[in-house]
Amino acid sequence: MGPFEPVDPDYAAKVRASFARQAFMRLIGAELVSIDPGRCRIGVPFRPDLTQQHGYVHAGIVTTLADNAAGYAAYSLMPADCSVLTVELKINLLAPARGDALEGRAEVVRAGRTLTVAEVKVHARHTASETVCAAALVTLMAMPGVADRAG
Amino acid sequence: MGPFEPVDPDYAAKVRASFARQAFMRLIGAELVSIDPGRCRIGVPFRPDLTQQHGYVHAGIVTTLADNAAGYAAYSLMPADCSVLTVELKINLLAPARGDALEGRAEVVRAGRTLTVAEVKVHARHTASETVCAAALVTLMAMPGVADRAG
Amino acid sequence: MGPFEPVDPDYAAKVRASFARQAFMRLIGAELVSIDPGRCRIGVPFRPDLTQQHGYVHAGIVTTLADNAAGYAAYSLMPADCSVLTVELKINLLAPARGDALEGRAEVVRAGRTLTVAEVKVHARHTASETVCAAALVTLMAMPGVADRAG
Amino acid sequence: MGPFEPVDPDYAAKVRASFARQAFMRLIGAELVSIDPGRCRIGVPFRPDLTQQHGYVHAGIVTTLADNAAGYAAYSLMPADCSVLTVELKINLLAPARGDALEGRAEVVRAGRTLTVAEVKVHARHTASETVCAAALVTLMAMPGVADRAG
Repeated sequence: MGPFEPVDPDYAAKVRASFARQAFMRLIGAELVSIDPGRCRIGVPFRPDLTQQHGYVHAGIVTTLADNAAGYAAYSLMPADCSVLTVELKINLLAPARGDALEGRAEVVRAGRTLTVAEVKVHARHTASETVCAAALVTLMAMPGVADRAG
Repeated sequence: MGPFEPVDPDYAAKVRASFARQAFMRLIGAELVSIDPGRCRIGVPFRPDLTQQHGYVHAGIVTTLADNAAGYAAYSLMPADCSVLTVELKINLLAPARGDALEGRAEVVRAGRTLTVAEVKVHARHTASETVCAAALVTLMAMPGVADRAG
Repeated sequence: MGPFEPVDPDYAAKVRASFARQAFMRLIGAELVSIDPGRCRIGVPFRPDLTQQHGYVHAGIVTTLADNAAGYAAYSLMPADCSVLTVELKINLLAPARGDALEGRAEVVRAGRTLTVAEVKVHARHTASETVCAAALVTLMAMPGVADRAG
Repeated sequence: MGPFEPVDPDYAAKVRASFARQAFMRLIGAELVSIDPGRCRIGVPFRPDLTQQHGYVHAGIVTTLADNAAGYAAYSLMPADCSVLTVELKINLLAPARGDALEGRAEVVRAGRTLTVAEVKVHARHTASETVCAAALVTLMAMPGVADRAG
């Protein structure tokens, strides 16, 4: 499980451009915290309009962070002329998602030609501490020859 | 697997009130389409600000629908004085989430005192057709004595 | 989700030959109950040496049935010159696996060129009744040009 | 995530006794390699009768190791008078399970009063090396007042 050697030397620019095209990331205020070969962090500050009925951040947001961090951790290792697709994901919600911000931290555990698998922890950050609020396993697929953009 | 007899005769009002407290549902424009004992449908019309880099609806939205439909299908069968929590979920993204609207349709397959399991299909609706774009299995937990609201 | 048209007219013989090569199926006494395009049933009679600490059939056996039924449901739809691989599976154990026999019943929900997804229910059969003891979602992969056998 | 303090000082004896009651472990030749608070390793030497159609160890065996290692990692942290149940598991099969032996290594990531979540890696051991052939996330449940044995 790493260190991984990226086949695309411009992997970081490629990932940042793709992230910037995700309108839903802007809607929820998410930001790409870091991208390295086989690793990615995506964060979102707490906002009242991201909550569920108990006032915690919605599981859908927690899962979105896990999915996206895994997707870009995988995409960092893929060739330049392909795009990435989430095949499936599984997430365990371990603790209420509350605090000042959430951060999804993904790490590739296997990078194959077609399929890549990543592990993710979602951390809830408080002023002076941090708890792991979710753990996920995500399967990603490389789509060769498919540009990473609409139209 | 059903028909299920709800122990709370006011299950529909309870679910609708809980759904109305989810600020994130308002942010994405989701609506509770129907609630029956052990079954729930939640829909969201297509909006450009819900998309990922290819212009399809983001996997995070698809998963949010699956999670929420499963949660309320389970909650419909729980006693009045408890709240519902997602323990974990697994989702397979089967086809691009595009079209005029998405709808998550959940059905309880086992309702236990503590844990409930629901199956979900997320449908992508087009003008004249419909495709299944995701299949999920979700585990929910009843929290007795915990009011379904913040504070 | 079906009916599916198999591209290999000899799909049943192909599946039966592959099943016959699985030494582990013989060890646990499993049999291929039925194979149809996109559907498969695999059963195992109760035996004391398949149990866990409470005397029920071990979750590992329940999962083996789910995995194998899904794998052959998928394989029935694949071209002749490829083999099938389980990418990942998720299973919810819904009730104790007890009774006279277990049967895994799989159905393909999406058949792609590379990936296929199947849903499975594992049924526990008693003298006069039947309960669903597990529900699973399984992702399978076609390996073109890889013969379905060792060596 | 740890170190964990076991509430049952005799956790190791409790786990070993439970493992010894699993007839299926004897059938496949599995052994409890180690048990520590929140951690467990279970191994199985290669045997031809554990294989699938390509001569590798069957995914059902790989999953059995993951399930059992997770179950006993969780059980080590539970009170003396309860038993443990697998609620659900998800496993990604990362590489062919071949070599001299397999070993499932589980670690609890969250220990709750009712539910515990564990992560597992299954390692394939060769004469001079080792590869990770599977990664799993498993949800376990404590059953208070239920003795860990049949009858």
